[in-house]
Amino acid sequence: MKWSDLDHDSCPVARAMSVVGDRWTLLILREAFLGTRRFDGFQDRLGITRHLLAERLKKLEALGLMHRTPYQERPLRHDYRLTPAGRAFGPVMLMLVDWATENLPSDLPPPVRVVSQADGHEVDPVVVDRATGTPLTYETMRLRRT
Amino acid sequence: MKWSDLDHDSCPVARAMSVVGDRWTLLILREAFLGTRRFDGFQDRLGITRHLLAERLKKLEALGLMHRTPYQERPLRHDYRLTPAGRAFGPVMLMLVDWATENLPSDLPPPVRVVSQADGHEVDPVVVDRATGTPLTYETMRLRRT
Repeated sequence: MKWSDLDHDSCPVARAMSVVGDRWTLLILREAFLGTRRFDGFQDRLGITRHLLAERLKKLEALGLMHRTPYQERPLRHDYRLTPAGRAFGPVMLMLVDWATENLPSDLPPPVRVVSQADGHEVDPVVVDRATGTPLTYETMRLRRT
Repeated sequence: MKWSDLDHDSCPVARAMSVVGDRWTLLILREAFLGTRRFDGFQDRLGITRHLLAERLKKLEALGLMHRTPYQERPLRHDYRLTPAGRAFGPVMLMLVDWATENLPSDLPPPVRVVSQADGHEVDPVVVDRATGTPLTYETMRLRRT
């Protein structure tokens, strides 16, 4: 595949870059997974300027990953919530965080843990094939150009 | 977490940005997963300049995701191969591609498919908890600050 194809977005890696290629976008999603919904909440947590935050939230709306709903009339105020497509990014973020924790060394403990909603045990994520349950690793899968 | 923490790399999301935050780095990894090993092979496939390619390969070596081995003495030539940490990125890339394919619309067919090494069937990746086999989704998991 050539660069020119990327401009036409045939490659999902290239499309994914619109989300993972931007640090603030990824961090806003992380905060949304942690339960943040208000503009001021995102701002406080991330220490981002209002201008940048507004811009990135608009981008996430345009991509269909977050949506705004009014929670107050005067003055008008909005909540920002994950759409189903945004929620579907959760497992991707989980794998990304797990991989970075294991493979990009840091002396500091990770600032978040991922636990099971059901019983609170810390989860150990692994990608498997839905049909067979086989772990999908470099050794068991193969990429093919179509 | 504040921006200042990110500079100290305590957040694995921030560390992951060194890989997923750069389009060429991600595309070089994709080519490596497709079997490319030679400098010229990466260049032909990606249409990247020699300068940028050399720089990104050095970065991938510095991160410990790829390593160089000589395959020829005169003139000296190298192969670029994935390290175990680089190979471990395979499942992350797979989830990223699967998510983008499902959630960021494109009119064009995806240029790569992922198949099982064992029998060649197209795989359907899902993240599960290793201990219980439960799919890890927005609904079943929870992020906690430590």
